[in-house]
Amino acid sequence: MPTKKKPQKAVAKKAPVKKTKTKTQAKVKTKPASSKTHSQPEAAATTLSGKYYYFFAKGKADGTAQMKGLLGGKGAGLAEMTNAGVPVPPGFTITTEVCNLYYGNSLEVPRAIDRDLEKHMHKLEKVTGRKFGDPNDPLLVSVRSGSKFSMPGMMDTVLNLGLNAETLEGLARKTNNMRFALDNYRRFISMFGNVVLGIDKDVFESVITKTKTDQRIKQDSSLQENDLRGIIRKYKQIIKRKTGESFPDDPYVQLRVARDAVFRSWHNPRAISYRRLHDIPSDLGTAVNVQVMVFGNMGNNSGTGVGFTRNPATGDKEFYGEYLLNAQGEDVVAGIRNPQPIVQLAQEMPSIYKQLKSITTRLEKHYRDIQDFEFTIEQNELFMLQTRAGKRTVQAAIKIAVDMVKEKLITKAEAIQRIDPQNLDRLLHPSLNPKAKYDVVATGLPASPGAASGRVYFTAEDVVKHGAKTSAILVREETNPDDIEGMNAAVGILTARGGRTSHAAVVARQMGKCCVCGAEAIRVNTARKQFQIGKLIIKEGEVITLNGSTGDVMLGTVPTIEPELSGEFSQFMSWADEIRRLNVRTNADTPRDAEQAIKFGAEGIGLCRTEHMFFAEDRIPIVQEMILADSPEERQAALDKLLPFQKKDFVKIFQVMKGLPVTIRTLDPPLHEFLPRKEEIRVKIEALDKKDEEYEEKLEALQKVIRRIEELKELNPMLGHRGCRLGIVYPEITEMQVRAIIEAACTLARDKKPVCPEIMIPLVGHVNEFRHQKEIVVRIANEVMAKRKVKKLDYLIGTMIEIPRAALTADEVAQEAEFFSFGTNDLTQMTMGFSRDDAGKFLNYYIENAILPYDPFVSIDQDGVGQLIAMGRDKGVAARKDLKVGICGEHGGDPDSIDFCHRVGLDYISCSPYRVPIARLAAAQAELRNASSKASSKASSKARSK
Amino acid sequence: MPTKKKPQKAVAKKAPVKKTKTKTQAKVKTKPASSKTHSQPEAAATTLSGKYYYFFAKGKADGTAQMKGLLGGKGAGLAEMTNAGVPVPPGFTITTEVCNLYYGNSLEVPRAIDRDLEKHMHKLEKVTGRKFGDPNDPLLVSVRSGSKFSMPGMMDTVLNLGLNAETLEGLARKTNNMRFALDNYRRFISMFGNVVLGIDKDVFESVITKTKTDQRIKQDSSLQENDLRGIIRKYKQIIKRKTGESFPDDPYVQLRVARDAVFRSWHNPRAISYRRLHDIPSDLGTAVNVQVMVFGNMGNNSGTGVGFTRNPATGDKEFYGEYLLNAQGEDVVAGIRNPQPIVQLAQEMPSIYKQLKSITTRLEKHYRDIQDFEFTIEQNELFMLQTRAGKRTVQAAIKIAVDMVKEKLITKAEAIQRIDPQNLDRLLHPSLNPKAKYDVVATGLPASPGAASGRVYFTAEDVVKHGAKTSAILVREETNPDDIEGMNAAVGILTARGGRTSHAAVVARQMGKCCVCGAEAIRVNTARKQFQIGKLIIKEGEVITLNGSTGDVMLGTVPTIEPELSGEFSQFMSWADEIRRLNVRTNADTPRDAEQAIKFGAEGIGLCRTEHMFFAEDRIPIVQEMILADSPEERQAALDKLLPFQKKDFVKIFQVMKGLPVTIRTLDPPLHEFLPRKEEIRVKIEALDKKDEEYEEKLEALQKVIRRIEELKELNPMLGHRGCRLGIVYPEITEMQVRAIIEAACTLARDKKPVCPEIMIPLVGHVNEFRHQKEIVVRIANEVMAKRKVKKLDYLIGTMIEIPRAALTADEVAQEAEFFSFGTNDLTQMTMGFSRDDAGKFLNYYIENAILPYDPFVSIDQDGVGQLIAMGRDKGVAARKDLKVGICGEHGGDPDSIDFCHRVGLDYISCSPYRVPIARLAAAQAELRNASSKASSKASSKARSK
Repeated sequence: MPTKKKPQKAVAKKAPVKKTKTKTQAKVKTKPASSKTHSQPEAAATTLSGKYYYFFAKGKADGTAQMKGLLGGKGAGLAEMTNAGVPVPPGFTITTEVCNLYYGNSLEVPRAIDRDLEKHMHKLEKVTGRKFGDPNDPLLVSVRSGSKFSMPGMMDTVLNLGLNAETLEGLARKTNNMRFALDNYRRFISMFGNVVLGIDKDVFESVITKTKTDQRIKQDSSLQENDLRGIIRKYKQIIKRKTGESFPDDPYVQLRVARDAVFRSWHNPRAISYRRLHDIPSDLGTAVNVQVMVFGNMGNNSGTGVGFTRNPATGDKEFYGEYLLNAQGEDVVAGIRNPQPIVQLAQEMPSIYKQLKSITTRLEKHYRDIQDFEFTIEQNELFMLQTRAGKRTVQAAIKIAVDMVKEKLITKAEAIQRIDPQNLDRLLHPSLNPKAKYDVVATGLPASPGAASGRVYFTAEDVVKHGAKTSAILVREETNPDDIEGMNAAVGILTARGGRTSHAAVVARQMGKCCVCGAEAIRVNTARKQFQIGKLIIKEGEVITLNGSTGDVMLGTVPTIEPELSGEFSQFMSWADEIRRLNVRTNADTPRDAEQAIKFGAEGIGLCRTEHMFFAEDRIPIVQEMILADSPEERQAALDKLLPFQKKDFVKIFQVMKGLPVTIRTLDPPLHEFLPRKEEIRVKIEALDKKDEEYEEKLEALQKVIRRIEELKELNPMLGHRGCRLGIVYPEITEMQVRAIIEAACTLARDKKPVCPEIMIPLVGHVNEFRHQKEIVVRIANEVMAKRKVKKLDYLIGTMIEIPRAALTADEVAQEAEFFSFGTNDLTQMTMGFSRDDAGKFLNYYIENAILPYDPFVSIDQDGVGQLIAMGRDKGVAARKDLKVGICGEHGGDPDSIDFCHRVGLDYISCSPYRVPIARLAAAQAELRNASSKASSKASSKARSK
Repeated sequence: MPTKKKPQKAVAKKAPVKKTKTKTQAKVKTKPASSKTHSQPEAAATTLSGKYYYFFAKGKADGTAQMKGLLGGKGAGLAEMTNAGVPVPPGFTITTEVCNLYYGNSLEVPRAIDRDLEKHMHKLEKVTGRKFGDPNDPLLVSVRSGSKFSMPGMMDTVLNLGLNAETLEGLARKTNNMRFALDNYRRFISMFGNVVLGIDKDVFESVITKTKTDQRIKQDSSLQENDLRGIIRKYKQIIKRKTGESFPDDPYVQLRVARDAVFRSWHNPRAISYRRLHDIPSDLGTAVNVQVMVFGNMGNNSGTGVGFTRNPATGDKEFYGEYLLNAQGEDVVAGIRNPQPIVQLAQEMPSIYKQLKSITTRLEKHYRDIQDFEFTIEQNELFMLQTRAGKRTVQAAIKIAVDMVKEKLITKAEAIQRIDPQNLDRLLHPSLNPKAKYDVVATGLPASPGAASGRVYFTAEDVVKHGAKTSAILVREETNPDDIEGMNAAVGILTARGGRTSHAAVVARQMGKCCVCGAEAIRVNTARKQFQIGKLIIKEGEVITLNGSTGDVMLGTVPTIEPELSGEFSQFMSWADEIRRLNVRTNADTPRDAEQAIKFGAEGIGLCRTEHMFFAEDRIPIVQEMILADSPEERQAALDKLLPFQKKDFVKIFQVMKGLPVTIRTLDPPLHEFLPRKEEIRVKIEALDKKDEEYEEKLEALQKVIRRIEELKELNPMLGHRGCRLGIVYPEITEMQVRAIIEAACTLARDKKPVCPEIMIPLVGHVNEFRHQKEIVVRIANEVMAKRKVKKLDYLIGTMIEIPRAALTADEVAQEAEFFSFGTNDLTQMTMGFSRDDAGKFLNYYIENAILPYDPFVSIDQDGVGQLIAMGRDKGVAARKDLKVGICGEHGGDPDSIDFCHRVGLDYISCSPYRVPIARLAAAQAELRNASSKASSKASSKARSK
């Protein structure tokens, strides 16, 4: 073979088929199948079908829409469309199996399969009446990737394949347009050079730029035939110089090499990165679609475009898209020329527009989802190049889902299942405060809604570098797939070029980042790390604000406000609420948090961390007094001072929650967390004035703090003196907290306001620990109620289950506890033996190297930690039928974990306020996904958990 | 009542019966019943029998030997002896139930029961023909405690009760011996004053001392009637002064108050301390034995003594004991006068001696155990006061058990069950090296065998204070029960007075401490903190050596040697080995450890910690090089240097173990443990000479160490980067270790020597971690074997189960691992969420306050951690039938934990070399205790685990 292979880091060259597969598989984040849309990643790879080419032409295709795994999304779509009578350029799909065989066969397509390539090209020749490599009327093809899950722009494509010095002449003759033929040829060579041979695009681009400068022309379209011939010559020289081989003239060599390049593109870094970001298994492989070229650049009766059947940003039911006349598809997607809105086509080519609208409407009904399509018009003939479910903003997704329910296209359950709960997050991000006054310094396209302020950076690396510490905005001429990590780390993206379907826009919408595209007024100078708007220069690190909903760019920070949630959103969430069995509570430590969560639909507080109240400026000195106390009496004195603060906090929270349950956890963190650092005290000691009359006293006081810090120092504070162990050794702390809770509750009760406190004892490992604390709770509660003359106050006493032993002995604990709340953060730490603070050193390595399938601090380790949760719940409920069981770790907001909680029969989940809508939706999806379990138990179980 | 009650700290005055019981019960270390001799602590307390007095007299008793719980050991013994026709002074026992009722009734005996006291005294009057309080021929009684388990000297006794100014005269008349009567009276008053009224003994003693000084006499026996009358007067004055009340003359008041004092003595601090040390439940209560006084001090035809049916120090079958003529029992036990060996009695009172020997021989056969008896001769009439199973040294216990099997008194299984495995420890302690030359500065009685060197201290407090830091020897005039904590903290005990049945001797033997008693040449001056032998003064903190087997006392440290284990010991252990199912291995890191363990019967190494080899002086710099390496190459270079060291160690260990399995664990501790402390490096930096040509280089090198220390710092190192997590991120470490192990094994294999390495991967939580390391092991092993041309080398690859997740997913892990070894230290830490290093702050509090029943780091937490062990074992064996499962945490040497391991079906336990015999015996006892389970599976299971 004449080409140099790109290095393939991730794949062992000599590995046998089976081994490679296992290895690749092992490297994938395979979360439980039930909770993902891609449920059978290995199916295609393990049983070979024996059929490796799927032909489609003239209304008849070998494949179907169902064969996404084998044909890729694009191939399956082409087959489906062909079968549906949609005008599609004929071609064939080489299956994903071949891709895996290629990787299993030392990066070569097995000979027998390779041999069949000619057969299928001959079939294509027969259908089109043209011949591949025919100097008179050459058949040209595109070679595109296509995997089961859409990975836009992630993989390589080669167009105009089949051109060489001879067929060039044929194409020119046949189209009677030498310039067109030459333009195609130079595009082909540069694409091939870039995609297949791995030569940087800029190398080719600079030849054109130089030619244009030499010729003093600005537009590519002004290049004359001679210019193009010169460019082609130079392109070929570049290839010869860079690879040591001549550009291949043989169309079959071109085809094979391009096919293999597509296969290899499956494992290029940006594809790997994309898959990692989107949880796509890496062993699926890509198919290769070989399809007859149609030309949108055959003059002004030709064109190309992309579109959506509804607005993918808002969900509005409007025909939406862009096109360019006399252009190839790449010109639209790459955002190099700014395209026309698709409605314009109705004026320019009314019958084509009508046909396009009719076909896409049919496609939407057929697929029962918004369609994202590509089309080309070749000399007044319409060809559909692709259709697929359209990526959309989550706002749009919800509107479309609700509309489609109303249009009776889909059911409510389907609507619920169509939204990735994680994406709801985006609805909840702030937008610009309409009352804010600001000057707009530039305007671009409103490519992805939301608003964000941040410091500007000009490369993906810089954003990644600074993005963790500060809000960063990525500013680029235009983005490309190499920028994906940077986009992920940014709060917003601003580009100077590109339309609303450009790379930046598509990716930003998917990521839920605010994005302004094609702001043509800005000039980006990446080398100098600045951009210019007229005379205004904005340098790296300066702050700007983007409004992704309007396309406005402002200097500095503009204030933002919480989003108004749409009517469709409420409607949609109410359907989720109808369906779900799990209750959704929130983790809230302040009245403000609680209020926010109530707005988002929280049904109670599942975790109120009292210690967070200890850190406030006016309280921390008292807390320190308590810790430094030499006697129970001194400690009591400090606690007496804390009591009114705690009580006031609880009163406010109870008021906000209006009778919904409020689970309050007694003091949990080790005491040293409340003390200053030793170094700080040392500085204070050094600053003491020895002439000060009180010098000795002050010194002694500070030295005492140091001594106490040293006393409290622990080798493994995670497993040290914290949680109920504090309340046991210092019962007066628990007493004060219970007093504050019950006094606050009595205040509401006496005003005849509903109140539902639940007191939660943390870090219980042995039932005796719980008993000890329960005795205090009951005693103090009775005392306070008697004093306040409140006869009846319903409150519960329960415990966190966060120590493995507590789960193992949950039957004993449940004899005393009225509710359980799984503290899955600590439970994960102890069950897996991972210190969350320290695990970074090996946990990232573990996940990257597939030692662990995913981060157990993000999603519950169902096989290990999950066993304890299921066991704890079952033993608990066996011992106490009306035991309420929930979860309040950070996993409470993770959809996969919520699915797990649903399956093991928990009553509620509790998560941060902003995750509440996500949890509500995920809980509904869990119910639908696991519907086969008993629907009957729903009502009773829900009643129980209220 | 005229007497002032002693304060009773531990008991709430107003608590109702039930509550007190629960509380007391909760304070007890209740280990699982199966593994303790006292299996039903609460039986007596929960159901009341309605009969509170048990009478015994003239060959007929209400009670039996089986009623120990109700009557206490002494009461049951008296009943049994009475029934057996043994001459016992008549009397009755007030049951332990009454004690508990007393505590439940505000420290008063319920009136109805109290009323019956007179009735039983009248019965006694009828049997003896004397009357209680009769001025002519008064009935005198002793009032003694007696609980289910023997607590020698722990509780209070009152003798001669019933004496007052009137009955004194009657006694004098009846015995025609006023001096005798007066002596009894003064004894009674001082005992009553001390025991019942809580006045210090010394207060009474000083009156006698003063009288003797005034009269210039040395012996108590030289005191004349007038002296005694003066003493009695002064005693009564003391009582009046100290209590504000007169000494009670009414015999029934005396009796009731004394009875209550005995009840209260159950909760005195030394009884509480004794129970805690001996794991005796605190809710058993004590019985009160009221028994007619017989007098050993009625002249030279009277006497008193104690004895054993066999030698309790050696086990030799010889009549053993001591007596004093014309003395009461207290004189013997308290060691105030040095008594005569019992064989002497054969000369002095041949018929009494014969009768005594015959009775005690019969008692031994009856009870099938060595008897510890007390007797009194009253004017040529023999009375047995008590008999019970004799406390003995463990050497004696083994000899007696083996002898009794030979005598067909007991079975082998009974013999095995009679020895507390914990006590075997004492056999394994060093004795003096016979080749050592030393001068004996004093000689006492050989009261408890073994030898020890240590610094001398003169109070229990001082021993407790220093005993943790240094070996301490307690030196006392004589010991008393208040010294018990000090004796426990000491390595040896030396007293100036008291015989081989004195308090010091009995307690020391029980504790397995070496003890020299009655070294009359020494004069102890506690106030000056020194003792004197002639002119030689030994001050606090100076070192002496005791030989408890000879009674010798030496200055300074005398070298010691390992004990020779007796023939009986081997015989006994061989029976244990016949019986047990569990294999016993040892934890050994060095050839020396391994050798020691083999001597003690270890059947393999269950844990060889390779990192301990890293700490040697010649290796640690290389280990540090490895840790500081900047690249895998540098790291490899350091590892290459370590390889030969590790290999050499393994060769030696394999040679010692002669083909027995050797489980080698790969590197476990976090790397920072191998680096110096940051402060040390800082000191080195400060010491650098700036003029040194290499200053910059040296500084940079040291700063690098600091940086690395900081990089390696972890918040919770227990849950950090350690165990297999190291071998995964740095595979070259595992590679080196495996290479060393397999090369060492090949060295033996090539010499045709048997070798059985088992490679153990630590801290596995997920099967993938194990897979990763196993791949390395297999690859390197194959490589080494190929290189060394060793075709067959049997080795196993297994894992520690020490992370809860590993136990939960043991089925998955067992698919890859060939053996499991439960690392119960870490498993306990993670399952219970206790950092062993930090738990002190609350764990002691937990145990003292019965939040936890016992220390889970000493004995496996069977309810929690035990569940994971059972689960891990069962899941593992289900997945791999021939999976070998053991335990190598420190629990491996704890008998209760061994019983647990037996019950859950482990194959082996591994413990420190010195615990191996204990483990062998405990394993045999576990088999016997759980014999009802399938005996049939024994053979096969044992074969499997070999």
